[in-house]
Amino acid sequence: MGSSGAAAGRGDRTEQPPMRDALIAAAFRLFTERGYEQTTVDDIVALAGVGRRSFFRYFPTKEDVVFPDHERCLADMTAFLAGSPDDAEPVTRVCDAARLVLRMYGENPSFSVQRYRLTKQVPGLRAYELSVVWHYERALARYLRERFAGHPDGSLRADVIAAAVVAAHNNALRSWLRSPDRVDAEAALGHALAQVREAFGTVPVPPSQALPEDVVVVVSRRDVPLWRVVRELESARGHG
Amino acid sequence: MGSSGAAAGRGDRTEQPPMRDALIAAAFRLFTERGYEQTTVDDIVALAGVGRRSFFRYFPTKEDVVFPDHERCLADMTAFLAGSPDDAEPVTRVCDAARLVLRMYGENPSFSVQRYRLTKQVPGLRAYELSVVWHYERALARYLRERFAGHPDGSLRADVIAAAVVAAHNNALRSWLRSPDRVDAEAALGHALAQVREAFGTVPVPPSQALPEDVVVVVSRRDVPLWRVVRELESARGHG
Repeated sequence: MGSSGAAAGRGDRTEQPPMRDALIAAAFRLFTERGYEQTTVDDIVALAGVGRRSFFRYFPTKEDVVFPDHERCLADMTAFLAGSPDDAEPVTRVCDAARLVLRMYGENPSFSVQRYRLTKQVPGLRAYELSVVWHYERALARYLRERFAGHPDGSLRADVIAAAVVAAHNNALRSWLRSPDRVDAEAALGHALAQVREAFGTVPVPPSQALPEDVVVVVSRRDVPLWRVVRELESARGHG
Repeated sequence: MGSSGAAAGRGDRTEQPPMRDALIAAAFRLFTERGYEQTTVDDIVALAGVGRRSFFRYFPTKEDVVFPDHERCLADMTAFLAGSPDDAEPVTRVCDAARLVLRMYGENPSFSVQRYRLTKQVPGLRAYELSVVWHYERALARYLRERFAGHPDGSLRADVIAAAVVAAHNNALRSWLRSPDRVDAEAALGHALAQVREAFGTVPVPPSQALPEDVVVVVSRRDVPLWRVVRELESARGHG
C-alpha cells in the first residue's frame, strides 16, 4: 500500500498506453455499478477484454487503479521543486507546487468526482488516499527543510507550512469536488493559499502599502510633554 | 483499519485489564525480538498465556495492538474539546488538546520509543498511524469549524489551523522520540505550538506590550512640513 504502487503511471497523460486507460475505465464503470468491494480484478479484466497479467503489469493492487495519476503527479511535483531557482520565495514555490496537484484533478473532472465519491465510501481507499496525501506533504516539507536549513526552527517551520499548504489545497479541492459546477477550483485554491501565505508572512506587500524610506513613525504617550515629542519628531526627520 | 479498532481501549489507563496489558507486553517483546511481520497472533497469545479469543476481544487486528492507547486518547481529546468554555480562545484550545496527545505518549516513554522505531520500519503500521493522525486532525478541525461557523473562510481556517497544530505536535513528538534523553517533550511542544499561534495571530499580548489608550501614533512623510505634523499630533493628543 502506498502511492509508490502504480509503477507504470509516469509520463504525460497523452502517452498512457490505451490498455491502461481501458482498464481504468472498466474498473470505474464496475465500481460505480456494483460497488468497489463487489468488483474483482477478474471482473475488470473481463470487461476490458485483457488478461489478468495485463492488469497487474499496470496496477499492483485493485486500490492502485483508483489512483492512477498520483505517481506521475508526485514525480512532476518533485521535479518542479527540484528545479526551483535559488532565489525563489519558498512558500510561494510550495503553493505553486500544490497548484500542480489541483491541475491533475482538473484534467479529468468527472473521473475526479467519481473517485471522490468512491473514496468517501470505502475505508481502504481513504487509507490509501491518506498515504498519497502524506507523500505530497513530505515532498513539500523536504523542499522547505532544505531551503530553511540553518535557520532556527527550520524543520518545524517547514513541516507546519507544508501541512498548512496541503490542508488549504484539500479544502479547496473538496469544495470543488462537492460542487464541480458551481466552484471554480483554481480560484478557490488561489484564495485558500493566499491565507496560508498571509499567515506565514510571505504576502508580497504592494508598492503603495510599503513603508517608504521617507516615512517617519512616532509613537508617544499622551502625557509626555508636546515639546519632547516634537524634538523626537525633528530628530527622526533629520532636522534635530 | 482505523483508530476506531481498539474498542476496549477506553477509560483511565489504570483501569485497563491486566490481560490486555499482558497481550501488549507480549506483542512488543516479540515484535522487537523477531520483527513485526514474523510475529503471528498465535505467537503473541502463546507468550501471554491466553487464548486467541482473548486477543481478538481487545484487538480486532494485529495492527491494533501496536496503537492500544489512541482510541482512549481520541475520546479524551474529543471530550476535552466538547467541554470547552464558550469564551475559550479556539486556537489556544486546540493547542491544549494537542498537549493531551503528547501526554499519552509521555505516560510510557520506552513503549512510545519502541513503537516509533517499529512504525518507521513497517509500511502497514505507518499507514495505520496516518489514519490515527487523521482522526486527531479531524477532531480538532471539527471543533474549530464550529467555533468559526458564520465567519468567512471559517472551514478553511479551521482545516489549516488543525493541520498546522498536528504538524507542530508531530515535529515536537518526533524530535523527542528520536532523542528521548536529550529533548524535553513538553517544552518542545510548547515552543512548536507558539509558532502556530503566532502565525495565526492568537498570541496573547502581554499587558506591558499592549497599546494603551494613552498612546498616540503619528505616521508622516518626511517631506510634509513639520508644522503640519505637529498640528496632527496636537489633534491626536486632544490638544488641537
